[in-house]
Amino acid sequence: MNREQMIDKVKAEMPERRWLHTQGVMETAVLLAERFGEDPVRAELAAILHDVAKYWPTERMESIIREKGLPSELLLYDKELWHAPVGAWIAEHEYGVTDADVLNAIRYHTSGRREMTKLEKIVCLADYMEPGRDFPGVETIRELSGHHLDKALLAGFNSTISFLLEKGKRIFPLTIEARNALLE
Amino acid sequence: MNREQMIDKVKAEMPERRWLHTQGVMETAVLLAERFGEDPVRAELAAILHDVAKYWPTERMESIIREKGLPSELLLYDKELWHAPVGAWIAEHEYGVTDADVLNAIRYHTSGRREMTKLEKIVCLADYMEPGRDFPGVETIRELSGHHLDKALLAGFNSTISFLLEKGKRIFPLTIEARNALLE
Repeated sequence: MNREQMIDKVKAEMPERRWLHTQGVMETAVLLAERFGEDPVRAELAAILHDVAKYWPTERMESIIREKGLPSELLLYDKELWHAPVGAWIAEHEYGVTDADVLNAIRYHTSGRREMTKLEKIVCLADYMEPGRDFPGVETIRELSGHHLDKALLAGFNSTISFLLEKGKRIFPLTIEARNALLE
Repeated sequence: MNREQMIDKVKAEMPERRWLHTQGVMETAVLLAERFGEDPVRAELAAILHDVAKYWPTERMESIIREKGLPSELLLYDKELWHAPVGAWIAEHEYGVTDADVLNAIRYHTSGRREMTKLEKIVCLADYMEPGRDFPGVETIRELSGHHLDKALLAGFNSTISFLLEKGKRIFPLTIEARNALLE
């Protein structure tokens, strides 16, 4: 599958609004990859596919998690998290992606994890700060991203944790581990 | 060792100010135990000993962690956390406490953990809200504690997590797991 075919297929999986977000993540990931010395082609590939499962029905995501051996503890956490590991599975099995780093960048783009690779950080950060994003603190994240990949991503995780804390929602331990690792 | 001997020995381990805090935790733990149907004698015992290691030199705590087989990942986190598991070890080996629930209430009084017992919750909450405590949100915790053990403790964990987030300090994953469990 070439780039254009992949884009057409992903685009068909989501509403127009979400495709605009995906385009924002693609552009931002390419820019960050160039800025921080990562391969922009791999960054764009992960960005194209990062939300491929975002609009799948819950039951379809759940059956992938259960039947394909994804970590079942996911089912205990917010459904918002499911599309990332399910997306990685789809990228591998329906889009033929074999690059483990690209698959992990998709898999961990929402939660983060301990000891993220540069590519994982870039996709996660691009998802926080693409031009369409608007939430308290996003400008700080954009400013930090001019020079500091880790500091910008840390600010992103802080905003997620604050949000979940205020809303009384469960916090995924991987995000805490990701933040702790960035503080080291 | 009887109650009075134990109190004298613990008192000698800490400055006057910390002993006043310990007395506050003892009174509060007894009150909460009576309110929520736990044994006040066991609650007081855990409270007496909860901070026994608080003023030990870092090296002395570290050697207990390393030499007595306590979880070594503790050493990666804030030293503020060490006195709790070290205190449980001392309670068992120097004060002859054999009640596993009392030892766990000491061990997890700072971090919390997933699936806390009622006694563990009471000691942890008493430590947050004893009369000497004064931090943003403590009144809310005290009010909630009138009727809701879990909600009061959740408010306590929220205040800790917010504090660590603001200060840019590492968050102990056990605290996140404890909070998540209370949200279920």
